[in-house]
Amino acid sequence: MTDTITLEKLDEKGRQIVFTGARTSNSFADTPVSDDELRDIWEMTRFTPTMANTQPLRVVFVRTAEGKERLLPHIAEGNAAKTAAAPVTAILAYDKNWHEEIPNVFPIRPEMKDYFAADEDARHGAGYHSAALQEGAFILATRAAGLAAGPIAGYDKDGIDKEFFPEGEWTTVMVVNIGHPGESPWFDRLPRVAAENAVVWA
Amino acid sequence: MTDTITLEKLDEKGRQIVFTGARTSNSFADTPVSDDELRDIWEMTRFTPTMANTQPLRVVFVRTAEGKERLLPHIAEGNAAKTAAAPVTAILAYDKNWHEEIPNVFPIRPEMKDYFAADEDARHGAGYHSAALQEGAFILATRAAGLAAGPIAGYDKDGIDKEFFPEGEWTTVMVVNIGHPGESPWFDRLPRVAAENAVVWA
Repeated sequence: MTDTITLEKLDEKGRQIVFTGARTSNSFADTPVSDDELRDIWEMTRFTPTMANTQPLRVVFVRTAEGKERLLPHIAEGNAAKTAAAPVTAILAYDKNWHEEIPNVFPIRPEMKDYFAADEDARHGAGYHSAALQEGAFILATRAAGLAAGPIAGYDKDGIDKEFFPEGEWTTVMVVNIGHPGESPWFDRLPRVAAENAVVWA
Repeated sequence: MTDTITLEKLDEKGRQIVFTGARTSNSFADTPVSDDELRDIWEMTRFTPTMANTQPLRVVFVRTAEGKERLLPHIAEGNAAKTAAAPVTAILAYDKNWHEEIPNVFPIRPEMKDYFAADEDARHGAGYHSAALQEGAFILATRAAGLAAGPIAGYDKDGIDKEFFPEGEWTTVMVVNIGHPGESPWFDRLPRVAAENAVVWA
């Protein structure tokens, strides 16, 4: 007899918070966000699965005036106002030397570290992909923490890397504004790709 | 006066289902999974944010004996038994011509389609990245649907592409077994990267 573990469905309210009701915020109120709320985001994000548990994602939580001053020159004009207004901007990066953690995070196969040390293309490919899985989880965890996320694509990646990661060890993969929604924070919801164009049954 | 929208935190049970309590499953019970449960996963996944709402992710839900027969020859030996046992295996892919949807999904800037039509590197880079954000959300949505997810990295990508996408329009980015946990479905939880090595405050 199998002692099957019974999993539970997320309730309707939870689905709305994390998936169906949440929206990308384009304006932010001046309501502050505490460091504990940001730690809460990380405490959820860090449990999302990655290839061989390698967890290459790293985060810089920029929430001081000095930090914003270092960041804003590297944000595209169209994203500058909301990035200045958001109480926190998270720089999501991945650690180019993520494989160094393998003996700690995947102790059942510590020798994987040597494989990825020797193959830079494999190291970049696997790290970038697993980091992006964590980026997707980070956005949903931000919502689960009761906050609005506003990921932006318009920024100078090299400029942010030079300013925040001068030794070249981490590299920026996404920038996410975080806070409470401000005035008219979002447009009407944009259309989704039709399910019959996106899902195939086999 | 700003009419600030108040967001809510996900409750403890919801956090456990989606983030902190969920585990990657390495064995599956023979409890069936219905097509409606799979549609439920997609109904949550499709609302996660992507660059300019482009939603490049596509899914093949393989859940028939015929479908499994087509898939299994392309799964690495170490992953074959669990992939055969799982009632469903999802092939996650991205549409290489995702930019064709831009006039539908981002009608405020339909001309972006031409930009990505002309620049193959930008098209691949943006599509691959946004698809990976959706892959991260897909795993969490599977848990929210009350099911266990078992993403696997060991498979022959070119073999799956040839078998399932012979016209070359979609390309495989991840394979995820889906079902209910079987016997001894997971090991003890592996360590997480220490927060002081992953999070920086600025």
